[in-house]
Amino acid sequence: MKCISDLGEFELIGRIARLAERAAVDGAQVVVGIGDDAAVLRPRAGEDLVVSADTFVEDVHFRWGTSSAKIVGRRALVANLSDLAAMGARPLGFTAALAAPGALELTRFDGLLRGMLHEARAHGCPLVGGNLTRASETSVAITVMGAVPRGKALRRNGLRAGDRLFVTGTLGGAALALARAELGRAPMRHVAMPRIEAGQALVRMREVRACIDVSDGLAADLGHMLEASGVGAEVDPAQLPRGRGLAQGASELGIDGERLVVGGGEDYELVFGYRGAATSAVLRRRLGVKVTEFGSVTRMRGARGWPSTEGWRHF
Amino acid sequence: MKCISDLGEFELIGRIARLAERAAVDGAQVVVGIGDDAAVLRPRAGEDLVVSADTFVEDVHFRWGTSSAKIVGRRALVANLSDLAAMGARPLGFTAALAAPGALELTRFDGLLRGMLHEARAHGCPLVGGNLTRASETSVAITVMGAVPRGKALRRNGLRAGDRLFVTGTLGGAALALARAELGRAPMRHVAMPRIEAGQALVRMREVRACIDVSDGLAADLGHMLEASGVGAEVDPAQLPRGRGLAQGASELGIDGERLVVGGGEDYELVFGYRGAATSAVLRRRLGVKVTEFGSVTRMRGARGWPSTEGWRHF
Repeated sequence: MKCISDLGEFELIGRIARLAERAAVDGAQVVVGIGDDAAVLRPRAGEDLVVSADTFVEDVHFRWGTSSAKIVGRRALVANLSDLAAMGARPLGFTAALAAPGALELTRFDGLLRGMLHEARAHGCPLVGGNLTRASETSVAITVMGAVPRGKALRRNGLRAGDRLFVTGTLGGAALALARAELGRAPMRHVAMPRIEAGQALVRMREVRACIDVSDGLAADLGHMLEASGVGAEVDPAQLPRGRGLAQGASELGIDGERLVVGGGEDYELVFGYRGAATSAVLRRRLGVKVTEFGSVTRMRGARGWPSTEGWRHF
Repeated sequence: MKCISDLGEFELIGRIARLAERAAVDGAQVVVGIGDDAAVLRPRAGEDLVVSADTFVEDVHFRWGTSSAKIVGRRALVANLSDLAAMGARPLGFTAALAAPGALELTRFDGLLRGMLHEARAHGCPLVGGNLTRASETSVAITVMGAVPRGKALRRNGLRAGDRLFVTGTLGGAALALARAELGRAPMRHVAMPRIEAGQALVRMREVRACIDVSDGLAADLGHMLEASGVGAEVDPAQLPRGRGLAQGASELGIDGERLVVGGGEDYELVFGYRGAATSAVLRRRLGVKVTEFGSVTRMRGARGWPSTEGWRHF
């Protein structure tokens, strides 16, 4: 099978540039793309720039054996897009530093790229730069850039006692798919949907002052928000939105479905505090996605209501 | 000796955040720094965003044996800052994805960081995000962001027949230091100065329409400009500005000094085309750095005047 060392560096870079061009995003934000000393992006007047970086490393964040290269590439970009969503930003573009051993199969290299570019196109976030180096294992270091109306980025630290707590979509699906793949039952095909549009809708809502995305698991990520805001919460896990077939899927694997919902990562749903009287149905219409109320913010620190979380951190 | 696996991930990240805070840059551009889902930067009204990514990998771009960790960190950020300079951008901030084996000595980890933060402070380019992962070898993947007046970014493709060709500073110094280190004569201590201020001055000059930085060597980088612009050049290598002691240093190592000047990389000087009548002395005052005229742009493609470049590409 052909591997990347069969192609020269310039040939590989040309390959990336061609694939990126085919996946070009309709948008006025790219003034200069790949090929100069740097790319040039154009935010709109009065926008702040939002920046986040995340790396996906072989055998740490993914395993070749449990998912296709395309799925790996999609997950890598989605993890970054979700950080933009959590700040309420619209995507501008991303850079990718690819490192790989020379023996990496060209089909995997292409798959990784195609996966990233698939999500790039889906969310209007073009690849605008990066580089390629040899390394002992494959990794993708991504920096994603977005824009948000000046001063309006959603922080973790804006929760206040009395805020109602909501979460978008459903929880546990990513962790279930990962558990299935790790146990050799089915390849990992699950890729979460970064809540880009919902994040931008939240930015426009005065009643929302704090948001985070569920990357490490709801309990952990809500914990980060509570700590940053200096507040606590009462939560009701029974209210949490389960993915379809979650209970059955978990029981087939002999694992606890509730753990997946409360502790599973990579769902990339948004958790936000809301200080208003609107019903879930109203918020759902405004955000364009299912939302569920699952608790409220308290003056007393710490989260009350979670099942015992002993040993969950490393789940 | 203490290595990074002796500290937990959170402890290491806390260490980075503390060091970054101490190296904080005075500037209004950082609205949200390290610690949220993403950082928030604020360009000025009417600015375009300039973005570049570059990775420094152990045993590919640097060797622990030939330079201190701090020098490695400085070189890594300077390589990126120089891309901003070549576009005429002022720095806004950077992200760094650090990967390292658990056995990396803590002193090297700290040195890498301190090196990057040293250059960050010197050039007003704060660390605003990143991440840390385990890997088989040490690497730093940096994405740097800057801002330039709207529509004014300096491209590679703006050369026109008749433009006079200039280069800032002196050439060959970085290649000489690297050769010395590789031959075991002296540790690599050389770190080039990214021409950030000169780049911004070039953007304000109507007579300048194209610029590149010398990262792969003058002949190679000028070649990229000529190709992108669809033009050629006549060059006079005798005019090229040599670093102090270059001839003697090269002869001590038994290598050809001219090769270092024409083919040596990492000098990070700026090469630009100028369509005006000003003398070098006038340009020097306007740019705040020594400039030397070394050729002119021709309609006929290709560069004429270089010494034979057989086998130079891999110098």
